[in-house]
Amino acid sequence: MPDTTTATDLYARVQQFHAEQMQALDSGEFDRYANTFTEDGEFRHSPGRPAAHTRAGIAKELKEFHRERFAGEPVQRRHWFNMLNVQEQPDGTIHATFYVLAILSRLGERVPEIAPSCLVRDVLVVENGRLLTRSRRVDHDHLPPS
Amino acid sequence: MPDTTTATDLYARVQQFHAEQMQALDSGEFDRYANTFTEDGEFRHSPGRPAAHTRAGIAKELKEFHRERFAGEPVQRRHWFNMLNVQEQPDGTIHATFYVLAILSRLGERVPEIAPSCLVRDVLVVENGRLLTRSRRVDHDHLPPS
Amino acid sequence: MPDTTTATDLYARVQQFHAEQMQALDSGEFDRYANTFTEDGEFRHSPGRPAAHTRAGIAKELKEFHRERFAGEPVQRRHWFNMLNVQEQPDGTIHATFYVLAILSRLGERVPEIAPSCLVRDVLVVENGRLLTRSRRVDHDHLPPS
Repeated sequence: MPDTTTATDLYARVQQFHAEQMQALDSGEFDRYANTFTEDGEFRHSPGRPAAHTRAGIAKELKEFHRERFAGEPVQRRHWFNMLNVQEQPDGTIHATFYVLAILSRLGERVPEIAPSCLVRDVLVVENGRLLTRSRRVDHDHLPPS
Repeated sequence: MPDTTTATDLYARVQQFHAEQMQALDSGEFDRYANTFTEDGEFRHSPGRPAAHTRAGIAKELKEFHRERFAGEPVQRRHWFNMLNVQEQPDGTIHATFYVLAILSRLGERVPEIAPSCLVRDVLVVENGRLLTRSRRVDHDHLPPS
Repeated sequence: MPDTTTATDLYARVQQFHAEQMQALDSGEFDRYANTFTEDGEFRHSPGRPAAHTRAGIAKELKEFHRERFAGEPVQRRHWFNMLNVQEQPDGTIHATFYVLAILSRLGERVPEIAPSCLVRDVLVVENGRLLTRSRRVDHDHLPPS
């Protein structure tokens, strides 16, 4: 069991890490997003699509997904996280479980689409003093668990 | 006035406490939610319903409320907190005032209902090193103050 | 580069600061909101409106904006922040970049309007041990960058 200051430091670090990570994704910087994963990282972002593996694989999957889904459309996505539950594990990994809403703004439309609501489970590790995502699994609240 | 590190520790602890508390509620674990209150805790969650008292009373009230409102319907609720304002009081209690949105996903419907918007006031205490809610009062933004 | 505890303290302080600042704004306490800026503070809250300057100027701008937009209407606004990215700068200022949603509840309407989605860039400074906003710039996701 970590002491309070250690737990506090970790909590704020995960928040800052998530903020930088998702601002990269929402800016379309898919390589920068992929580099927040470990080299062998796993990312399962949508039910029905296979998990992407490795930084190169994650960046490739995201580029394809965005091309298919938002082809040519001027949109701004924002991923919001909430209710962050951080649990250090005996093996040194960090489990973070939190809520996510995906927000989509279209040019000229003041009211964004807010959907879907998700539960995300991250396994985080510290490598060379830097937090990284080893695996991320996204479950959608409106779909049966996969 | 606490020093900065004490205030920081408390801020992150309240965030972690709220995350665990609400993930329990949103998983339908009403007894686990009730156990995040003090034994004599008070929970006033909806205008027009009397406050629930004691852990047993809070768990009972939640079971009844969910049965009435979502009977048989496969829904996933998520409570989101934001703009957490934590103020230590001279008597040792902690006042937390924050915004809440209740999010409801229905099976097969990608766009969740997000309503209502609320203001919540918690009185928190530390018992045996553990944060607990002594009282929680929820006011709905679309209703006149009760 | 600050050590971890310093970075953690700052992160939680900015969250607490934003919570108090926006609870003041959403309560209609425009003078209290303006006092969270430096005396020479700048606030650019809507595209197409000129930036407001100085505490007196910011309070005046907000009073006019609210009178024009919500004249006589009983509404409750809530500003939600998310994905807070805090970066200390070599010059001692603090850059905070984060997402914002504006939520508007009307009396008797359970479902609030949630719009627009924004990106906000704050420059914060510490004066006499107190965090203050030196400048805040709001960009709306559905409008072309100004």
